[in-house]
Amino acid sequence: MKKLAVVAFGGNALLKSGQKGTIDEQELNVHETCSHLMELIKQDYNIVIGHGNGPQVGNVLLQHDAGEKMYSVPKLPLDICVAETQGSIGYMIEQQMKNVLRKEKVEKDVITLITQVLVDKDDPAFQNPTKPVGPYYPKEEAEKIHAATGDIFAEDPRGRGWRKVVASPKPVHISNKRAVETLAREGMIVITVGGGGIPVFNVEPEKVQGIDAVIDKDLASSMLAQQINADEFYILTDIPKVCINFNKPDQKELDVITVAEAEKYLAEKQFAEGSMAPKVRAAIQFVKNGGKKCVITEAASLHIAGCGTQIIA
Amino acid sequence: MKKLAVVAFGGNALLKSGQKGTIDEQELNVHETCSHLMELIKQDYNIVIGHGNGPQVGNVLLQHDAGEKMYSVPKLPLDICVAETQGSIGYMIEQQMKNVLRKEKVEKDVITLITQVLVDKDDPAFQNPTKPVGPYYPKEEAEKIHAATGDIFAEDPRGRGWRKVVASPKPVHISNKRAVETLAREGMIVITVGGGGIPVFNVEPEKVQGIDAVIDKDLASSMLAQQINADEFYILTDIPKVCINFNKPDQKELDVITVAEAEKYLAEKQFAEGSMAPKVRAAIQFVKNGGKKCVITEAASLHIAGCGTQIIA
Repeated sequence: MKKLAVVAFGGNALLKSGQKGTIDEQELNVHETCSHLMELIKQDYNIVIGHGNGPQVGNVLLQHDAGEKMYSVPKLPLDICVAETQGSIGYMIEQQMKNVLRKEKVEKDVITLITQVLVDKDDPAFQNPTKPVGPYYPKEEAEKIHAATGDIFAEDPRGRGWRKVVASPKPVHISNKRAVETLAREGMIVITVGGGGIPVFNVEPEKVQGIDAVIDKDLASSMLAQQINADEFYILTDIPKVCINFNKPDQKELDVITVAEAEKYLAEKQFAEGSMAPKVRAAIQFVKNGGKKCVITEAASLHIAGCGTQIIA
Repeated sequence: MKKLAVVAFGGNALLKSGQKGTIDEQELNVHETCSHLMELIKQDYNIVIGHGNGPQVGNVLLQHDAGEKMYSVPKLPLDICVAETQGSIGYMIEQQMKNVLRKEKVEKDVITLITQVLVDKDDPAFQNPTKPVGPYYPKEEAEKIHAATGDIFAEDPRGRGWRKVVASPKPVHISNKRAVETLAREGMIVITVGGGGIPVFNVEPEKVQGIDAVIDKDLASSMLAQQINADEFYILTDIPKVCINFNKPDQKELDVITVAEAEKYLAEKQFAEGSMAPKVRAAIQFVKNGGKKCVITEAASLHIAGCGTQIIA
């Protein structure tokens, strides 16, 4: 049986910082990332792709706000907006991945799934929503929306206005894991858990419903990798290896580390929150739950044998 | 082996004429449609769901227009907008279908796929684009967009302004048919070809690209039903049976008709273009290519044995 790998990368790999998000920019970025993923196909892996949606869902939220103001199109909630980005980003990745495969004369189906991820409504994250999403509003408008909907707002530390904040709960269950594993084991490339998945919860035993929240895409991809029994888990970022003493004179790149070492570095606060720390936690979770290894690296290094920082048991 | 059926319904089943499209309206409509589909599950079919997206993609196009004007978020092309609606509508159907299944204590996965549909760039439809999409513009703005992008505009016959028109080419190939059939034969309910599919064409032998066009959802679902070797094809609409002499004193509901009879009625122009005629054509195409029968009916009639108008060889 071929080795099965889950590969996760950020929405920033597709819409780079400083770019507006035109279709040409996004297609070019996606094509480049897919060319690098081809390295794993050549190494005879079956692969499943998880991806972020930060910049894209930001744009969708602005579009919904503007659509309601200009054309009275009702704004739809965050879970629907995430579903929209799973469609658009998934389509872009699927198309460029197919084009790369064709060029390399490799016959493989590429399949995009819309993916709900169950969260626990008692997750403590819901007591303290901290993740800002959507437009910046003047204080008065934020107060008006809060009064009408109960949405919680926080002032932007850089003075750009008030933004809605939502919780970032832990992923509990990937809704379509059986389909993902079935298709991936048949040799299809499967794109899933876009934006960390659409967050849903059991509102009653027989009823699932979406919820205003965002799930960390690395944690969701890690959970997916565990639930489909993947052998390896790749987290792509913008540096070739994880570093300790980052940006200091004694900065050191890590090659192979154990889960115990990774936990020690985390406890020492070697990794920035909102950046490398959640990736290392996602890696630890995968390896602790039976994964063989997790690799944190940049897409452009995938052609190098033993690339990146490897976290092993 | 269980019988495999493809069921197609319109975006209007989800966002009804006169409704604005709030999340509550759409969820209620979707839930009702899914309750009716449960009848086919009880009759032990494996089912694949195809759906339209007319009102929804209309809203997305307005949101993109408004987002660019208010927040400088670049408008994305029609193929991306269709992909967004496949995500949002697919998610809504998947969630409500799961809730209906749970209530009925039936264990089944429900899976939503993003679906590209290949069209032929030499399809004569591209010579004469007639399908209006997106916002109504004043003449001057339409002319400006035409000059910048080459988009073609036509004046609205009811005087509401100028609207972009795109071609409605024939579907040629459903990109993910193998995955659809694999999952459906395993007993999963598969949601696919949303909005008739994302139209793509071979820009060169090794490169597929999206194209500004819309594909008729009944024709796309018919093509899908053929390509996955479905036994039966259900086209859901808002009347229980197809009629001849519709709205005349001698109006007659059709029970069972052959392909030859259906073709005769079509030649007599018994069915309205843009309404029943394309459904009957989709039905004929399915049965002529090996399908056992096509049923045209309303969702609420699915519990009746031998419901609707049946088109057979």
